[in-house]
Amino acid sequence: MSEVRVHNLAISLDGFATGDGQSLEAPFGHAGERLHEWLVGTRFFHASDGLPGGTVGIENAFAERHEPGIGAEIMGAGKFGPPGWQDDPEWKGWWGPNPPFHSPVFVLTHRPRASVEMEGGTTYHFVDATPSEALEQARAAAGGGDIRLGGGATVVREFLAAGLVDYAHIAQVPILLGRGVRLWDGLEALEDKYDIEVVSSPSGITHLTLTAKAA
Amino acid sequence: MSEVRVHNLAISLDGFATGDGQSLEAPFGHAGERLHEWLVGTRFFHASDGLPGGTVGIENAFAERHEPGIGAEIMGAGKFGPPGWQDDPEWKGWWGPNPPFHSPVFVLTHRPRASVEMEGGTTYHFVDATPSEALEQARAAAGGGDIRLGGGATVVREFLAAGLVDYAHIAQVPILLGRGVRLWDGLEALEDKYDIEVVSSPSGITHLTLTAKAA
Repeated sequence: MSEVRVHNLAISLDGFATGDGQSLEAPFGHAGERLHEWLVGTRFFHASDGLPGGTVGIENAFAERHEPGIGAEIMGAGKFGPPGWQDDPEWKGWWGPNPPFHSPVFVLTHRPRASVEMEGGTTYHFVDATPSEALEQARAAAGGGDIRLGGGATVVREFLAAGLVDYAHIAQVPILLGRGVRLWDGLEALEDKYDIEVVSSPSGITHLTLTAKAA
Repeated sequence: MSEVRVHNLAISLDGFATGDGQSLEAPFGHAGERLHEWLVGTRFFHASDGLPGGTVGIENAFAERHEPGIGAEIMGAGKFGPPGWQDDPEWKGWWGPNPPFHSPVFVLTHRPRASVEMEGGTTYHFVDATPSEALEQARAAAGGGDIRLGGGATVVREFLAAGLVDYAHIAQVPILLGRGVRLWDGLEALEDKYDIEVVSSPSGITHLTLTAKAA
């Protein structure tokens, strides 16, 4: 069966995947871009912006795994737009007319709306569903490909708690945010279900790889 | 001036330095010994128990720094004994008649008692004091040596917040405890005051080194 994968999810040392005070101007709240500098510097990220250059070390090696084999993405409402985007019928995500997903994207929201087809193969579907229901829909649309669980932290936490994630790459950044949305809450003894590998990079990031243990 | 150092403080991935439900039988609550297996396996720890052998890699290199140059220790009430030890006039710590400190030890408690002299150079002093007041007393007793801040997490957090720590070694263990006492709470932007270096070990521990930036 296709896998459910999390890639490039960044958290602070104190476990926050986004800061406090998210808004249209500050998608990650008071965290700003500090959780993602390691990613923005990679060749993978440069290329996605049509730019040359970028690092090709450990950060890039993890970052590039974001794409291959993915057939659909599931994301939370908090990733799709700033608080209140549901009140704006014209809101179509942060990513412009040609979003970087190039696949069906299932946005979890308690206020679903009609699907929106974008350029480049991305179609946004809005679903009010449990994690397992959403996963079923995404699998049906993924053409046999894997499902990327795109975040944010709340959705990843819920899928982890439900035992629905096969692989997760989490990048721990050595800053303390103090407030925001925590990834790890309520996941006691997750190590019983996942092998957890860690490797630190010269830039100070700790890359955590969670791989579901065989049942 | 002598330095204030934290050594071998272990936390879980979700930031807990001790588990829930601490007691005489379970000094670390439901965490058991899982936060300290990396330490117990080292040559440093073996030697402190009079045993041969033990690992001599990165874990041991960090662990051994616990001793040299220390003139006194400060610890919190939660490290000295199980909840309620203050009601037991005979309680003299977890460590038996010859404790591994071999120096004056200042135990922070709101219920001070008379000092207790143990074998091997350890004397317990019980002080109801702020972090800076306790540090002043410890420095006066340390004979020019450094001050080890022995934990637990609450005390280390308070000293970090007060800007009184010069160096801290924290070992992050890849387990999720879910509950207990968190180290990182309320320390937003600690990276502005500390250089933070990270290195992961083959055994899966991430060693974090915090060094105070020059003022």
